[in-house]
Amino acid sequence: MVNERLKKQLDFILEVDKTKNIFRRSLIHDGSRRENDAEHSWHIALMAFLFSEYSKDSDVDILKVMKMCLIHDIIEIDAGDTFCYDELGRLDKLEREQKAADRIFGLLPDDQGKELRELWEEFDAMETPEAKYAAAFDRLEPILLNYANKGGTWQEYNIKKSQVLERINHISDSAPELYEFAVSLLDKAIEQGYLPE
Amino acid sequence: MVNERLKKQLDFILEVDKTKNIFRRSLIHDGSRRENDAEHSWHIALMAFLFSEYSKDSDVDILKVMKMCLIHDIIEIDAGDTFCYDELGRLDKLEREQKAADRIFGLLPDDQGKELRELWEEFDAMETPEAKYAAAFDRLEPILLNYANKGGTWQEYNIKKSQVLERINHISDSAPELYEFAVSLLDKAIEQGYLPE
Repeated sequence: MVNERLKKQLDFILEVDKTKNIFRRSLIHDGSRRENDAEHSWHIALMAFLFSEYSKDSDVDILKVMKMCLIHDIIEIDAGDTFCYDELGRLDKLEREQKAADRIFGLLPDDQGKELRELWEEFDAMETPEAKYAAAFDRLEPILLNYANKGGTWQEYNIKKSQVLERINHISDSAPELYEFAVSLLDKAIEQGYLPE
Repeated sequence: MVNERLKKQLDFILEVDKTKNIFRRSLIHDGSRRENDAEHSWHIALMAFLFSEYSKDSDVDILKVMKMCLIHDIIEIDAGDTFCYDELGRLDKLEREQKAADRIFGLLPDDQGKELRELWEEFDAMETPEAKYAAAFDRLEPILLNYANKGGTWQEYNIKKSQVLERINHISDSAPELYEFAVSLLDKAIEQGYLPE
């Protein structure tokens, strides 16, 4: 006998297996294929706890950050991945994602649906220390991968350093040492010819 | 300038990207392909916090459980995935995995290498409430996937209900309601012809 609450939780857990089929633009370290949302979320949740000493706010709630990292891309099951440098795709991103959040978080029992929806909205707004800190890894991880695979999406879409800098600007606020590292890696990437000047 | 400590942490984070290339036997929900370790770890970390109300030990440390879930398969980068019903492969599993742990956790600064190694060893020993609770999801997730894809590895390797029950027996201790659900799902799987009787 499975009660109604557990059934909803199980339906959600099975539904989100679909994030394993949502592919991002970023390639994995060896450049062999694109990365999917589940892998990416795993990676940044791991970074969040391993790099916690670099958070500017020493009171940052790491458990909350890790939850954000794990669920931040679930809405892409319906809304699809919007490439961060796709200006056109970003126009209706909000609408697509809100609709997706209604359906997917709506699978859960009300209290948990509300908790996850709020976590996702908090992440997306990037205003609280936890959201800023989680977003730092969402931006850093593809930079590490792009460098490792010798340019990946930077080369493929002719992305410039200024565009990457704009995307990671906020890291200087939430984790200054990691921001400094990211900027130095971009300079190295230019030297190596991985990132167009 | 990247200090020695950050460099080690970054080397580790890039190294573990390889878990995205370590494929398990389990197929994802739609049966289209095998699941990799990174995706699997993401999924069970998410289950750990979403199902926390089912933990028999209400004091279970969910942050610790989530960390365990995220890192429990990292040693498979060197040791490979050992199919849980492969009796021969299990013989030298311990030795292969200890060697892998030496190298991979050894990439980190000493304090963090020690923390992750201890988390992994605690998970593997399955004695503490956190380890038992994390292990519950490590076993439950492939059952959900096998049912969703109409038999997956059960069919492929002619696995019997008794073998699955032996693998999940401990869940009755750490999360009794989830154990009860899993047993009922196995019965449903037999009815549907997904699991050999």
